[in-house]
Amino acid sequence: MDYYSGQISRLIEELSTLPGIGGKTAQRLAFHILNMPVEQVEKLSLTMTEARKNICYCQECYTLTDKEHCPICSNEARDHQTIMVVESTRDLAAYEKTGKFEGVYHVLHGAISPMLGIGPNDIKLKELIQRLEGEVQEVIIATNSSLEGETTAMYISKLIKPTGIRVTRIASGVPVGGDLECIDEVTLLRALEGRVEL
Amino acid sequence: MDYYSGQISRLIEELSTLPGIGGKTAQRLAFHILNMPVEQVEKLSLTMTEARKNICYCQECYTLTDKEHCPICSNEARDHQTIMVVESTRDLAAYEKTGKFEGVYHVLHGAISPMLGIGPNDIKLKELIQRLEGEVQEVIIATNSSLEGETTAMYISKLIKPTGIRVTRIASGVPVGGDLECIDEVTLLRALEGRVEL
Repeated sequence: MDYYSGQISRLIEELSTLPGIGGKTAQRLAFHILNMPVEQVEKLSLTMTEARKNICYCQECYTLTDKEHCPICSNEARDHQTIMVVESTRDLAAYEKTGKFEGVYHVLHGAISPMLGIGPNDIKLKELIQRLEGEVQEVIIATNSSLEGETTAMYISKLIKPTGIRVTRIASGVPVGGDLECIDEVTLLRALEGRVEL
Repeated sequence: MDYYSGQISRLIEELSTLPGIGGKTAQRLAFHILNMPVEQVEKLSLTMTEARKNICYCQECYTLTDKEHCPICSNEARDHQTIMVVESTRDLAAYEKTGKFEGVYHVLHGAISPMLGIGPNDIKLKELIQRLEGEVQEVIIATNSSLEGETTAMYISKLIKPTGIRVTRIASGVPVGGDLECIDEVTLLRALEGRVEL
């Protein structure tokens, strides 16, 4: 890319290493950044480096946070006896957006995947088991509805069941607003199996 | 977004101010950045701030560059008597990618648009006229084929014609590989008007 001067090409190159940012988008972003006020560019880069440097795992639920304990775990008003197990901090955020879940979370940072060589020891599973030594009443498994997510859910349920703690899995079925004819057979069968009394 | 800790939300917020980056993409980018090695994040932010600080207009063609003269203008091998007028540095790069244009450029940084209140004095037009005092033989107008681009092209040609310098406009027509039935009437008419002898 020698039709741009050195620093512009370097910027485009670095931006295009980000996920979902191709060559064209990287160019557009680069020229946007070059047209932004200097202070704003400095603020953006400072936010990036500061966030990256200060980020750590919450010592309780292992979500990404910038303190020793995340805002959810340090909130006394929440029900610390109900733990929802999710694969990532973004999944946690998705449930938090509903605003209806009162319990706490446990972030696994991945799912068991023999295909990718990710075993039970590669995700935060030991840490979940350690947390169960406290006064936990229910573990809600909210891993994704993918092959890996289901495998992980089965594995966790088998591990926890013997301790007598209640283990549940979020329901699988037709999404709200979903059009039946556009939904795959497996989901339709799951919805049928999981039918509830009206 | 209080379901993320302060620094993560700030990062997501800042990223989503970039063009074409919505809330979901900003989240994905933020978590990618948080998972990158610290040095890489530092490198990215340094590239951003350095590029922004050192960027300036080339003193000859007004493209964005990090030196007083851009690599194209300082290249003695190029034909400095042929100037291609483009709207932006990205348009310049688009023509440079073809690798066939031997002349130099002039970047207007915009186009005349009465709708947006952009007049001839708001783009680098005076600077173009000043350059014509040298030994220029041809001005090729390669502004976009939009209303604003066409208006700008007409304006420039009327301005330069009296000086006796040759003024040309890049051809308008059916794109290579284009399917006739998918092309609008105006383009089809242009292609007909601009037909060439075989």
